[in-house]
Amino acid sequence: MRDLTFRRCKQLFKYNFLTQNEVMQTPLKMTVLNDCLGMYDWSLASKYSLNVGMFGGTVSNSGSERHRKFVQDINNMMTFGCFALTELSHGSNTRGVRTTARYDPSTQEFVINSPDFEAAKFWVGNLGKTATHAVVFAQLYTPDGLCHGLHSFVVQVRDPKTLLALPGVMVGDMGKKLGLNGLDNGFAVFYNVRIPRENLLNKTGDVTPDGRYVTPFKDPNKRFGASLGALSGGRVSITRMATVNLKLAMTVAVRFSATRRQFGPTEDEEIPVLEYQLQQWRLIPYLAAVYALDIFAKSFFLNFVEFQMGLLMKDDSARQAELGREIHAMSCSSKPLASWTAQRAIQECREACGGHGYLAMNRLGHLRDDSDPNCTYEGDNSVLLQQTSNYLLSLLQYQQQGKGRILSPLETVNFLDDWSQILEHKFTAASVEECMDSAVPLAAYKWLVCFLLGESQQKLAKQKALGLGDFEARNNSQVYYCRTLAIAYIEHSVLQRFHDLTWNEQTPAGLRSVLRKLCALYGLWSLTNHIAILYQGGYFSGKEPADFIQNAILTLCSQLKDDAVALVDVVAPPDFILNSPIGKADGELYKNLWTAVMQGKNVLERPSWWAEFCSDKPQVGSLRAKL
Amino acid sequence: MRDLTFRRCKQLFKYNFLTQNEVMQTPLKMTVLNDCLGMYDWSLASKYSLNVGMFGGTVSNSGSERHRKFVQDINNMMTFGCFALTELSHGSNTRGVRTTARYDPSTQEFVINSPDFEAAKFWVGNLGKTATHAVVFAQLYTPDGLCHGLHSFVVQVRDPKTLLALPGVMVGDMGKKLGLNGLDNGFAVFYNVRIPRENLLNKTGDVTPDGRYVTPFKDPNKRFGASLGALSGGRVSITRMATVNLKLAMTVAVRFSATRRQFGPTEDEEIPVLEYQLQQWRLIPYLAAVYALDIFAKSFFLNFVEFQMGLLMKDDSARQAELGREIHAMSCSSKPLASWTAQRAIQECREACGGHGYLAMNRLGHLRDDSDPNCTYEGDNSVLLQQTSNYLLSLLQYQQQGKGRILSPLETVNFLDDWSQILEHKFTAASVEECMDSAVPLAAYKWLVCFLLGESQQKLAKQKALGLGDFEARNNSQVYYCRTLAIAYIEHSVLQRFHDLTWNEQTPAGLRSVLRKLCALYGLWSLTNHIAILYQGGYFSGKEPADFIQNAILTLCSQLKDDAVALVDVVAPPDFILNSPIGKADGELYKNLWTAVMQGKNVLERPSWWAEFCSDKPQVGSLRAKL
Repeated sequence: MRDLTFRRCKQLFKYNFLTQNEVMQTPLKMTVLNDCLGMYDWSLASKYSLNVGMFGGTVSNSGSERHRKFVQDINNMMTFGCFALTELSHGSNTRGVRTTARYDPSTQEFVINSPDFEAAKFWVGNLGKTATHAVVFAQLYTPDGLCHGLHSFVVQVRDPKTLLALPGVMVGDMGKKLGLNGLDNGFAVFYNVRIPRENLLNKTGDVTPDGRYVTPFKDPNKRFGASLGALSGGRVSITRMATVNLKLAMTVAVRFSATRRQFGPTEDEEIPVLEYQLQQWRLIPYLAAVYALDIFAKSFFLNFVEFQMGLLMKDDSARQAELGREIHAMSCSSKPLASWTAQRAIQECREACGGHGYLAMNRLGHLRDDSDPNCTYEGDNSVLLQQTSNYLLSLLQYQQQGKGRILSPLETVNFLDDWSQILEHKFTAASVEECMDSAVPLAAYKWLVCFLLGESQQKLAKQKALGLGDFEARNNSQVYYCRTLAIAYIEHSVLQRFHDLTWNEQTPAGLRSVLRKLCALYGLWSLTNHIAILYQGGYFSGKEPADFIQNAILTLCSQLKDDAVALVDVVAPPDFILNSPIGKADGELYKNLWTAVMQGKNVLERPSWWAEFCSDKPQVGSLRAKL
Repeated sequence: MRDLTFRRCKQLFKYNFLTQNEVMQTPLKMTVLNDCLGMYDWSLASKYSLNVGMFGGTVSNSGSERHRKFVQDINNMMTFGCFALTELSHGSNTRGVRTTARYDPSTQEFVINSPDFEAAKFWVGNLGKTATHAVVFAQLYTPDGLCHGLHSFVVQVRDPKTLLALPGVMVGDMGKKLGLNGLDNGFAVFYNVRIPRENLLNKTGDVTPDGRYVTPFKDPNKRFGASLGALSGGRVSITRMATVNLKLAMTVAVRFSATRRQFGPTEDEEIPVLEYQLQQWRLIPYLAAVYALDIFAKSFFLNFVEFQMGLLMKDDSARQAELGREIHAMSCSSKPLASWTAQRAIQECREACGGHGYLAMNRLGHLRDDSDPNCTYEGDNSVLLQQTSNYLLSLLQYQQQGKGRILSPLETVNFLDDWSQILEHKFTAASVEECMDSAVPLAAYKWLVCFLLGESQQKLAKQKALGLGDFEARNNSQVYYCRTLAIAYIEHSVLQRFHDLTWNEQTPAGLRSVLRKLCALYGLWSLTNHIAILYQGGYFSGKEPADFIQNAILTLCSQLKDDAVALVDVVAPPDFILNSPIGKADGELYKNLWTAVMQGKNVLERPSWWAEFCSDKPQVGSLRAKL
């Protein structure tokens, strides 16, 4: 798989689908290319983007003119790159990284060292077999013994002429993973590896030939943030990647459910399983999530492009800074939301397709395995959510301290400025029909985020009043408070953007009706995870609100089921790319499955080890005495 | 993997761990053996038990004296068996099976046919490569053209001397699955395959040499039930198997979390991730579920043994019949509960172990893949739950029609007799401390089951009042009603048995304290899925009940975290069996992981395809013109 993926990767160089110019003109094309590659094979997409995007992009963004040659070599495949941040014993806590880079003025070199195997660089994509160069994050020491924190360096690890490791570098392949096995994740241990002084990526700090540290930043915290800035785009991307997996899984499960028949009102008649309310309820809300997350991920990517342009233009306005904070908060919750939604959906699809969903050729297993790491890399989902809630809490504090209103460039938090007023609201819908409008869950979400924000703040305050430090107080306020707050905030943002689109004049009139149903369904279904809180805080009271919402969900599922196949056809790739016999567009479920099974290797042959059965019979109980 | 598993299977014959006598004396040993084999490898456990248990057991239970030789041949491994019920287009709806067995009096044979490829037997474990004989379910036709419904037949499919398929049988391997790839699942198509009349397993019906159908049953529905009776033990077993997987995953994740350090109150100090409230909340409730489900699965197996003994003794008492119904209802919900709990837990463990959880050698991926089919085989979870709710609804109707009280041999439904009184109850706990007692969630569950039972009945009645038939009315009452009812019922049963154990005099006094905490935690945590309903129905009102329960859960997690390692050590197999470097008992997380990685094949070698990179450089954009 490593070999095959590398060959495919080479082919991408030959195609060179997108030139730098095309990307600059239409940045969205980059995302579309990544979507398409991922639909085909995520190992390939990852291998390519880790090389060009993560290595190349980081060198471009964190380095300077003197590093241009590294990027050129990557673009011609003269070298192959990777991004080496995490270590065996440090993932989430990147500040705790222990690799060192000590400057030696006598030779004008940095000496890279791994203090022990626990500080081995670990999980680095492309490092297992193919990378010749790595961006290595290490603690920078100047000759005076001072540590200047984490910096990134270009370190050559293999000879591009032979792919043999350089002296001092022990580099290897981590072996089999649950998925993405076309990608060679690897590790590296450094023993006194010397690199030229110039290989320090010097945007945030540099060392002079004689060994003095110089930086344009005064605040070391800001410097740290900037040196990790190269990571921020990853989460925006993953939000999108997870949505692509969601599309693929839903395509398979909806097409299967529309053609698989089982049971029926009479002995002789069987109906498609999609006709069952239960199957609709299992699948159609996830179909609504496809649309909600797709719309969000696309517009969010464009927000990120705007931010990147600002960086490129060296925009140092307050708005640019605020935009950065908001995008950070959004991406730290949109990545968890999208990756968890996809992961749960894939499992539901696997089960909804029954045994046939368990056959590898139908691809749901590959999707589950390849989608899974989206929950972990670029920040563990649960850890990331704290970034979002910290952002929201800081805004509330800012307002309460009288420093100004709650406002943000993308307006995802603006409603919070009215939090005390919103908390007065109650659920007012008086019928199931009234609930079938996305305005109803949207209003509930506004109340929910305000309520959770207030509760989280109080919880934190109580913890501190008990004498706990900031670290403990925050840790003890995650479950049921900050964590839920972050999730509710991003669900609200996703729903708001979808809601706005369904009321946008530019949205074709003929599509608005089905989009509004999908939007209402997504909102109501997401909200059901929070019904307990809505009652707890008094937004709901009595039996009706939950009854209405449940009935509205079932009605919407039923109204959408006849459109379900068309709705997946819109987002599905061609059959060749989808690569799932039970998910083919022609709906010939059994013919496609049977044909694919019969094409299996040695499918009808007796096993090569047949004599094991036929001639070498075991003597029953012969080993029992030895127990 | 197929080869290796077969060889291991042969070794089991040589060991012959359990003789028939030992099983009869201590039936629990059978379960313990299966647990142990499964902890090592589920493909092996399945391959062995499909042969001996499913084939051998079905022939014994559904056949008669004339079939004894088939069982003897299996026990000596002269032949190898499988169980062929499902077809390509029929899984859940087994009544819809279309394979035919037509009796030909001229030769006193049955002629087996698959009408088309959609009726090919499919998903049959052992049939892919190794089975020589199959129990085949087919529609029995007598020469008068009458169909007598589904019956089972012993059909030889391969020659035991050569493992070549017999004429008329097209038999093959289905290929790669998401997991359990040591097991050869297969398919078979029959073209006029003739088998002796005597191969009909004739417990529920027989055909005389001249072609008359004779049966001890008068009601064809009962006959069908009895002929599928052989399946009922599967779900009891799977409840246990899922619990075993839960144990393995929790062992890995808890040991990892106790040794993995990340972040801390100061820059220099990092704390084990199990010290974080969030990590505790993610894992420790599942640890409580290990104990709850383990206790349940064990006692439930003994209930099933009692039932089997009744069958063996030809007990035709009303109690025996009621016991059968109750066990059916319990197993149709305990299998879903246990398999879903395990599947969710494994995913949570994978994520809780971060990237290292994604490395194949750490086994969480294998567990996820091998545990997954527990949700599907022996009845799709969602479909099965309807059996349970149907049972409960029929009991309610029985009582309401004045036919008698609601009572059952295992007493899982007895409280329902007081349903109208129980529905008057409200949540009364006045503090977090008071909630930390399993009596609190137990009382809430009693109310919940009664409430859902009433609501489900009303929903059904409303659907029928709208003019819907029984089939549609039931379908439209699953979501939010019958489905939740079935889950709540079995959660209550599991909790009740655990609760009783913690108050049992025979439970060692020194263990009761920790068991009570686990029991309360399991109950409260399971109940959180239903809080919306508790508010909806008025059992909860105001903010306090949910607050109390949430705080009780967090407090219990925190109280249990120091015992967590000991609690997994109790259920964990030896390291060799657990087979997970990050889950080893010594807690030397990084040493074990590093050592295992370094033992990988070709770990430090350059890839065999290095010249692909080094000499054959792509010409960038050379294929672009061809796009």
